[in-house]
Amino acid sequence: GDARFGIVHDSSVSADNTGIHNRFTLNIDAATETDSGLEFFARVRVRGENTGVDGDPVTPGNQANASGVSAPRVGVRAGGVEVAVGNIKGAIEEMPGLYGGEVGLTALGDLNAVAKTTRTSDNWDMFSSAGGGANGAEVLYSGNGISGHLSHSPVSDRTALFAAYEQDTWFVAGGYQTGDLSIDDKVILTAGATFGNFGVGAGYADNDGTEKWRLSGTARVGAATVLTAFVADDESATETLWGVGFNHDLGGAEFVGGVVSDEDGENQADLGLRFNF
Amino acid sequence: GDARFGIVHDSSVSADNTGIHNRFTLNIDAATETDSGLEFFARVRVRGENTGVDGDPVTPGNQANASGVSAPRVGVRAGGVEVAVGNIKGAIEEMPGLYGGEVGLTALGDLNAVAKTTRTSDNWDMFSSAGGGANGAEVLYSGNGISGHLSHSPVSDRTALFAAYEQDTWFVAGGYQTGDLSIDDKVILTAGATFGNFGVGAGYADNDGTEKWRLSGTARVGAATVLTAFVADDESATETLWGVGFNHDLGGAEFVGGVVSDEDGENQADLGLRFNF
Amino acid sequence: GDARFGIVHDSSVSADNTGIHNRFTLNIDAATETDSGLEFFARVRVRGENTGVDGDPVTPGNQANASGVSAPRVGVRAGGVEVAVGNIKGAIEEMPGLYGGEVGLTALGDLNAVAKTTRTSDNWDMFSSAGGGANGAEVLYSGNGISGHLSHSPVSDRTALFAAYEQDTWFVAGGYQTGDLSIDDKVILTAGATFGNFGVGAGYADNDGTEKWRLSGTARVGAATVLTAFVADDESATETLWGVGFNHDLGGAEFVGGVVSDEDGENQADLGLRFNF
Repeated sequence: GDARFGIVHDSSVSADNTGIHNRFTLNIDAATETDSGLEFFARVRVRGENTGVDGDPVTPGNQANASGVSAPRVGVRAGGVEVAVGNIKGAIEEMPGLYGGEVGLTALGDLNAVAKTTRTSDNWDMFSSAGGGANGAEVLYSGNGISGHLSHSPVSDRTALFAAYEQDTWFVAGGYQTGDLSIDDKVILTAGATFGNFGVGAGYADNDGTEKWRLSGTARVGAATVLTAFVADDESATETLWGVGFNHDLGGAEFVGGVVSDEDGENQADLGLRFNF
Repeated sequence: GDARFGIVHDSSVSADNTGIHNRFTLNIDAATETDSGLEFFARVRVRGENTGVDGDPVTPGNQANASGVSAPRVGVRAGGVEVAVGNIKGAIEEMPGLYGGEVGLTALGDLNAVAKTTRTSDNWDMFSSAGGGANGAEVLYSGNGISGHLSHSPVSDRTALFAAYEQDTWFVAGGYQTGDLSIDDKVILTAGATFGNFGVGAGYADNDGTEKWRLSGTARVGAATVLTAFVADDESATETLWGVGFNHDLGGAEFVGGVVSDEDGENQADLGLRFNF
Repeated sequence: GDARFGIVHDSSVSADNTGIHNRFTLNIDAATETDSGLEFFARVRVRGENTGVDGDPVTPGNQANASGVSAPRVGVRAGGVEVAVGNIKGAIEEMPGLYGGEVGLTALGDLNAVAKTTRTSDNWDMFSSAGGGANGAEVLYSGNGISGHLSHSPVSDRTALFAAYEQDTWFVAGGYQTGDLSIDDKVILTAGATFGNFGVGAGYADNDGTEKWRLSGTARVGAATVLTAFVADDESATETLWGVGFNHDLGGAEFVGGVVSDEDGENQADLGLRFNF
């Protein structure tokens, strides 16, 4: 699992616009293997957090939320193929490069993700860390640099697919989603490459006609610090989106912060510490 | 713990009558022993699932449920005697042979259980896997083939008892329940025996005047497969109940399926995989 | 973690005034250390219980509660200093001697705590064992017998502080709390000392003008049994508060019980077993 804590700021909130953020994530993984080599697995996740602004209460009398335990994801894998049902991961969520260019302790609204627009929001299936999720089914394949993922949920009525090719220093990926709601239709393309201490990435999506693209880059400065920046254009947003962030390795934990400018040109920022256990 | 997943079908549901089922069960057991040999224990259970049909949502916009953590069962044991309070197991639920003849991945409504009728449903105290349970108290004894169990809950106002005698190849058991509600009165008799690759079982219950009986049998066919069948008559049901199922051992997991016919003659079926960890 | 179970009685409740109590507490602690010696940590707690009287349901049809998983407390420590955010412990709650003189399996309403009065109740921030807590921030220091703790919550709008000095056989501590609500203002003083088999303690608090004091004592009688008694005067209570209790060590578990007299002179009592794991 992992945990993080720090300060978050949102200039679009008029009062109490700076808050204390914390998040705790513990995966409970169970697995067993048959004599013939099939590996059965199940996961639930314990997740607790206070986002610090917006949804969480900061007024007297309101209490923060308890942690939740997610619905299970249960399945079987053999060779490079995995089949799972329940609280599925979702093909769009797992597509390489979807979150390329991410900045900050908290990802600051995932403005870098081309599948998320002001008009459509993040309308794809993903593992719910403290809730029920999409109760779907999915098949994943990975081998020889090729990966693919097909997911479907009868709850969300979304079917999604990605295919990707990854080498040591570059990747390309394409994703597709269709749903009962036409707003759920998506075509997504991502790519990325690294050159020594530098990395570049790009993404494009047609979200039911709403186009979004993103360019991002990372630069290693010194032994332990990486800078990240992105710029993105969302057809349904008033302003150009951008973000910059840093990640400093403490040798067992990370000191992380970032600033973004959102669809209205308002700024959000965060700063804090993150660690795995 | 254990987990399972598969497909469930219910012909009595008009739309979306086939669904994806999954369940995850993790027991968190704590124990300590005093110098004098008393063993104190406590258990809570983490349970998440989607039943696949009926109660769980399959319409867009509805979300599946998060997992729950059960209320605790806490107690002490010494020799063959165990005393526990809280989220008790319940004497009827633990009676040998109550679930004799069970078929399918999901037990398909437990139509084989003679203490459960169309009129009374499953009106006895049992450990709640993701909820609060009966907050009662119970005493269990086991030794030399004899077992007994007395339970009481001030929440459900039920008092229940079973006594059983078990040998290697056969058992007999008798159960009794009385409650503040007369519908909770029950007398239950079960028995079973095995003969090499074959097994037979029988059950009878008077559920506040509503009689139910059940005959069941199992047959091992080949090295890894067991077939199970039952037929049951519930005075409060329109149709005779029956079910057939199979269980195929994968050497570390099980491939399981079954079909039953319920009180209206409608069929339910399931098919899937089950494993322990 | 730990667990306990037993019987609780409250003479102020007219019906069902004796109930079965149980509680289960499991701390899930995660930690990691950086190369430079910073220790990052996170905790959530799984808590399930039935109090046995009062809040919990004892009428048919009502179900007891499932267990909860607390919001996380996340932080970092180095040397004797600890910084944490989220579901904070709170300075008043952690003040040495606050719970001096505690009796019984369940603490029986914490009548011995001078910061809790009939008028103000327990109006300070504390770690929530199954809920969200105060989502605050706190700094703790401990070293060379000196300890201090400063906490603040923007949810409760309380800021609290304690400082204490502890030696092998005695301690003194002072606490202070101020809040947006004037009823949250508190000044607290506690002290305690042990003399061989005997111990004495005292506490005083001004709770927004409502004074409360407490005297308590413990006596070891025999090798494994400790008796505890307290008397307290709460300006906002009709009657003098008192309590007596015992604690018998079973070598791996404890047999514990107590009786108290509350603000109306009504008695509450409990008796049961407690163990750590």
